Amino acid sequence: MSTPTIELLCHHRSIRAYTPEPVSDEQIELILTAAQAVSSSNFLQCTSIIRVTDTELRSKLAVLAGNQPYVTQAPEFWVFCADLNRHKQLVPQVELGKAEQLLVGCVDTAIMAQNAVVAAESLGLGCVYIGGIRGQIEQVTTLLNLPKYVLPLFGVCIGHPAQHPDIKPRLPKAAMFFENHYQPIQKSLIDEYNTTMANYYQQRSSNQKVSGWSDTIEKILNSVKRDTMLDYLHQQGWINK
Amino acid sequence: MSTPTIELLCHHRSIRAYTPEPVSDEQIELILTAAQAVSSSNFLQCTSIIRVTDTELRSKLAVLAGNQPYVTQAPEFWVFCADLNRHKQLVPQVELGKAEQLLVGCVDTAIMAQNAVVAAESLGLGCVYIGGIRGQIEQVTTLLNLPKYVLPLFGVCIGHPAQHPDIKPRLPKAAMFFENHYQPIQKSLIDEYNTTMANYYQQRSSNQKVSGWSDTIEKILNSVKRDTMLDYLHQQGWINK
Repeated sequence: MSTPTIELLCHHRSIRAYTPEPVSDEQIELILTAAQAVSSSNFLQCTSIIRVTDTELRSKLAVLAGNQPYVTQAPEFWVFCADLNRHKQLVPQVELGKAEQLLVGCVDTAIMAQNAVVAAESLGLGCVYIGGIRGQIEQVTTLLNLPKYVLPLFGVCIGHPAQHPDIKPRLPKAAMFFENHYQPIQKSLIDEYNTTMANYYQQRSSNQKVSGWSDTIEKILNSVKRDTMLDYLHQQGWINK
Repeated sequence: MSTPTIELLCHHRSIRAYTPEPVSDEQIELILTAAQAVSSSNFLQCTSIIRVTDTELRSKLAVLAGNQPYVTQAPEFWVFCADLNRHKQLVPQVELGKAEQLLVGCVDTAIMAQNAVVAAESLGLGCVYIGGIRGQIEQVTTLLNLPKYVLPLFGVCIGHPAQHPDIKPRLPKAAMFFENHYQPIQKSLIDEYNTTMANYYQQRSSNQKVSGWSDTIEKILNSVKRDTMLDYLHQQGWINK
């Protein structure tokens, strides 16, 4: 039997339009407490959040994120950062820059953000992840005064929903959930899913288009370049060894 | 006002001991559906999950993860993988290996896992993340037949709790939640937190120890080496450019 929490998770959609109503201090406190309650690898707690309240800063970030106006319009915009700088401040002799540490930072930070999103949604709020801040990550790093060993992974917009988008069908479970060993794709499953997605894109309530799923992959993987990322990571102190 | 979901998130603790009762097929279906409902960067859906049911495979993974017996004992053990191999199978000409793609893979996979954990906990189940599978990630990759562009980030044990550990106090919010710009640590906040953690470690119901928080950082960061990770990532097709 399902649970109200599972129903909530299953009704997730990204919300990119908000009413003017602010997120209350009490809600912020609840969201943050739930976020912090997440697991942390070896309890390193290597995440910091920058809450961007300054309107000028917000406008600049909206442009850097690829002209996403909801970054400016959302009542709340939080930038989630993998942060080992705090540890370096506390214990200057620790050796950083290991690839393993990047994975820990990314995982810890992402699961904390997801708790924040779930908590917010349970309060009737809507959210959207803004990976676009990685598009010009060097400038984002400068704007937020992020020192070495701090990596801004994504932003999250939070606010009261002013839209109710449809829920996108996901990959068939058999195409991503395997028993004991990895399995190559079954073409029939993906064909069927492409048809499902084509129907969805043609019939959804807004932004209709003619597309399946497989054909979007190539566009995305070839268009989202961010080719300076590896240099940036190195300069920022990550993944040097 | 809080919500039942927020209360659930705030009562999270890692569960490492389980009753023999299995996780039902219906529960697995619900957990997986909730996991898939999470956001996905550009809807790339770049996560695969390997459910390890084979007992011999499970025992080997428990050893590789650093002799963690609960990996064998848990009714369910799922390995969460960042997966761009599926995309490569569908569109062979896509260019992979970009640093940006590693970040996308890690974030997408981690937030999906957190949805699975939250869904499971809402069903009364308990979970623990097993980052230890990265300790000997090369052998894990071989055992699970993971091809290039598939990265096993962590496992998750799921089962009916047979323990009720205490909840660890988290960092003071002011030490990880900043407004507009990153802030260096305030020593007084960390001193206070070290005292809180020292009290917690001395008084918790099991595994008591004399330790604060800052002093654990150095031990962890110096002892969790995984120095082959960068080479492994390169060989597995990740972060080459």
